[in-house]
Parts: sequence; C-alpha cells; structure tokens
Amino acid sequence: MSAGLFGSIEGGGTKFVCAVIDEQNQILAEMRVPTTTPDETLNACLDFFNQQQVLLGRLAALGIACFGPLDARRDSPTYGQILATPKPGWAFTDVAGFYEDRLEVPVGFDTDVNGAVLAEALWGAGKGLSDVVYFTIGTGIGGGAMVNGQLLHGLMHPEMGHARLPRIGGNEGFFGVCPFHGDCFEGVASGPAMAARWGMPAEMLSPEHPAWKLEAAYIALALQGVICTLAPQRIILGGGVMSADFLFPMIRQKTVEFLNGYIHAVEILEGIEDYIVPPGLGTRSGILGGKALAELADRKELIAHS
Amino acid sequence: MSAGLFGSIEGGGTKFVCAVIDEQNQILAEMRVPTTTPDETLNACLDFFNQQQVLLGRLAALGIACFGPLDARRDSPTYGQILATPKPGWAFTDVAGFYEDRLEVPVGFDTDVNGAVLAEALWGAGKGLSDVVYFTIGTGIGGGAMVNGQLLHGLMHPEMGHARLPRIGGNEGFFGVCPFHGDCFEGVASGPAMAARWGMPAEMLSPEHPAWKLEAAYIALALQGVICTLAPQRIILGGGVMSADFLFPMIRQKTVEFLNGYIHAVEILEGIEDYIVPPGLGTRSGILGGKALAELADRKELIAHS
Repeated sequence: MSAGLFGSIEGGGTKFVCAVIDEQNQILAEMRVPTTTPDETLNACLDFFNQQQVLLGRLAALGIACFGPLDARRDSPTYGQILATPKPGWAFTDVAGFYEDRLEVPVGFDTDVNGAVLAEALWGAGKGLSDVVYFTIGTGIGGGAMVNGQLLHGLMHPEMGHARLPRIGGNEGFFGVCPFHGDCFEGVASGPAMAARWGMPAEMLSPEHPAWKLEAAYIALALQGVICTLAPQRIILGGGVMSADFLFPMIRQKTVEFLNGYIHAVEILEGIEDYIVPPGLGTRSGILGGKALAELADRKELIAHS
Repeated sequence: MSAGLFGSIEGGGTKFVCAVIDEQNQILAEMRVPTTTPDETLNACLDFFNQQQVLLGRLAALGIACFGPLDARRDSPTYGQILATPKPGWAFTDVAGFYEDRLEVPVGFDTDVNGAVLAEALWGAGKGLSDVVYFTIGTGIGGGAMVNGQLLHGLMHPEMGHARLPRIGGNEGFFGVCPFHGDCFEGVASGPAMAARWGMPAEMLSPEHPAWKLEAAYIALALQGVICTLAPQRIILGGGVMSADFLFPMIRQKTVEFLNGYIHAVEILEGIEDYIVPPGLGTRSGILGGKALAELADRKELIAHS
C-alpha cells in the first residue's frame, strides 16, 4: 500500500471520471468513460485503476462521488447502491460493493454533491468552516451539506433540489419540469426548466434576457430557505447554469432582499460577496470530492483497525 | 457540588420557568415568573436557584433554553446574549453571563427548540436517533435540529419558521402576518396567522372548520422542505397549535402527498405514523431541554478540565 495514493470516481449520469490523486491533490492520471451500462462503465473504471496500480503503486483507498439517489448509510442493507434512478439499468446497482470486492481497499461512497462540499470544505471555498452547503445547478439541482464538520446524511442524503418554492409573480403559467413536484427548485430553476420556459437552452440566452433575473430570484428563494433551515457559514454554487457568473451578484442581492434583515449575521448583512460564492476548486470539486471521500474511508479504516 | 443536580431555565417571551432536576429527570423544585424586565426576571430566577441550593444542594450546572434570536456560539463576542428581539428591554441582554457570574457553575445556553430537540433525542420521541427535527408551532414557529448527534448551529441558530412556502390555492388574498417576510411558514401557519385569517383564535375553530385542512397543508409543505434539506430520521411537532392533535394524521397524509414518492425511505413510505410525531416528553420538552443543555455544559466543563 502506497499511503499517499487515492483513487477517485466522479460518477455522473452522462460520464464517469476516474483519477489517481496523490496526497497533495495532484492528479497523476485521469480517464473518462460514458455512462452506458453498469457492467461496461464500472468495469472500464476498474481496468483503469488496475492499470494505474501497476504503473503508480497500490491505492490506499477509493472514493466515489456519485449521482443519486443512493444509499450512503454504512449500516443499511442497501449501502453502496444507487437506488431508484430512472437511468436504465442502474437502479439498485451496488457500486461501492463492486469496487470493495475487486480492489480490496477501503471505499468511500456518497453523493456527488456531498463529495464536492467535503472537498470544498477541506481545500476550496469552504476551507476552515464547519457548516457549508454546496449546490450544483445544472441539468438537475442537488445540494450537499457539512454540519458541525460532518457530512449531512440523516434518513438519507438530502434532496435540496426538490424543496418547494413560492411562485414569483408573472410566471403562473409555467408549471415546472420536475415529474415529481412540478415547481420545486429543480422544477423551476434547473437548466431544462430554463430551456422549457424560454424555448431555448440557457447558454443561448443573452445576459440581458429577463430569464436571468427570474433565475437569480428563484435561486435566492431557495437559498433563503436553506439559510433559515441549515444556517450555513457559506454557500457554494456550482454546476452548468452557474457558469453564467453574472448570476452571482444578482443572487446575492435577491437573497439579502428575501431575508429582509431577519437573520442578524454580519457574514450576510455585510459580507454577502464572501457568503455566496463559486467553487474554490473550480471544475475539480467533483473529482477531488471522490478523493476526499477516499481519504475519509481510509481514515475510518485506520480507526477501525486501531 | 452534588454531581446529580441540574438547574434548568425555560425562558419564554411570556414566562420563565425554572427548575431543579436530578439525574433521573425528576423535577425536585419548580417556579415560574412572568417575563417582565431582564433585571426583574433574571433575578427572580437567580433567587430561586440560590434558595434551592441551600435546600437541595449545589447545582452541577445550569442550562437555559431560551427564546431568540440569540447567540449560542461559544467563540462569539456576543455569546450568551439574546440578540435583536422586539421584546422591550431584552435586546442584547447577556443571559448566560448573568448566571455564569453569579452561580459560578457551567452554563449551557441555546434556543428553546434546540433544548427541546436535545431532550427529545435523549429521552423522548427521538430517543436513539442521530438526526431529529423539533418544531414548535404556536405564537411563533421555530425549529431545532440535531444532525449526526449534534445540535445544529452553523452561522447562527436556524430560523426554520421563516423559510418561504408556496401559496396554497384559494388563499391568495391573505398576505401572512410575519412583519419580515409576510407569507413565510410562521406568517401563514402560526397561531396569530390562523387568528388573522379566520377572524378568531385557533382554539375557537371546530375540528371540522376548513382552517385545519389548510393549516395541515401549510405545515406539510414546510416539512416537505425540511425533509428535502435536512433528511431527519424523525420530526417532532409541539407547541400550542399542535395541541389540536387531530392535525397529526392530516399533516402526515399531506406530507406524503407533497413528497410524491421521490424520497425512497421506508420510514416515510411505510411508517409515517412514527415519522411525524408529538413530543415524547409532552409539555416537559422545554424544561428538560434546559436540563439537557445543563448536562452538556457540565460534560464540556469536565472534558475541558481533564
């Protein structure tokens, strides 16, 4: 075992990214494969890790930051599985078990957004903080949270994209695209929601288009609820929609407006620019999320053996 | 020091309840005083504890479960204070410091709802669980949460009563009573909201009145958001409005309806009766909340000294 070598998988609905990463977060090798069948995709990643272990040395642990819904509760009979996903063939696939059996290293397994919030809290925009929320706003909307320095799980992982939001005036005619809830956060503010509402993909809309003002307002409404419920010390917004970085000042302004002075925290009232921020790790939040989960699995294993 | 004797204060906007409680949660002495000025009220409680210490023995610690907003962050310069409350004279009163200076015992200080969720998780309806949410729904609406076995604080304590909710059809004319947010959870579902909407206090409305159906729906909408965001293992509902216990089955049904099968947790899908429940400690959640905070302060003190 090379103590300082970690495997990471960023498992998405479109592609899986695999990497071997050292203790200093240097990515030593990386590969991406399309998400086809579990058999094909998981084995392609396995082959990559087996090859890299010959070249670079044995992995200390593997971490998987994966699309959901999934079961990340260690004491659950379905731990390690992707649950009832609409993605064909993937429902109830035991992803963590697949690699535990074949790589024989400790495997960390959690949602993509919990991986990202962990990586951001360790090395990125949430560094030094104990209570951080990370949202990805893109094809879907998901949120991960660290509370008191630990990842939030509870009954299952959060599904922050599916909290219901108030309607913003003038859009009563648009029902929202979520097949479960219609106009939940994801239903009104994901990329597909923008495309459905305005008749073209978000990236085609000019920054002056009224779509963005409405988008910022809906995101701010969701953040208002998250602030009232989780009171994070910082909120990190990533994902495809947030690559329109002119959204940040608009979201900050509306969030302060919606809170309306009720939350007396200088971090919000005087420092909103440092409160709602983009990922500090940029596009590496995901793959370093897997690495962070690997480190966690490695440390847990060490604790369990001591 | 009698190791097993704890002081507890349940500090509300109307009255303060003080008690001396033993390790087995027996209330050995209890007193209530109206909430007038900080000077009068805090000193009346101090006198009670001083008298009881002569009669019963020295307290190991004191816990204060208090109305807010307040600062419960130990490392904050305003720790121990009630913050910008509209209650005359109480803003920026150093409640924890008052008793630390005069009783010279470890003092625990947190919100009434964080005290209640801690007591319920230790001895009541959340016993054995690590992730529990407690709501009080009455004159105001507040929520406390335990996550991974620890009280949720973050930037400040949560203000779950102030998350915004979608409007339920047919009530567009009613704006909500929250002076900050209008139609947030507290604005549409607190006791005063019910009274304002229907023209009479909630306790005057018969169980058949349509007010209750709407009330259950708004509470369920709020719980849908909390489940998506915090994913608690159980939700406990207390407070004056919830003394109308016929609300429980109505709220359970609407919560399942609003989640619409998205959260695949047997605890919700098959066990909603055990998922949304009244307080296991009944009306003692508050005063035992103070005692639980006292125990926590006592243990922290012991750890710090060891």
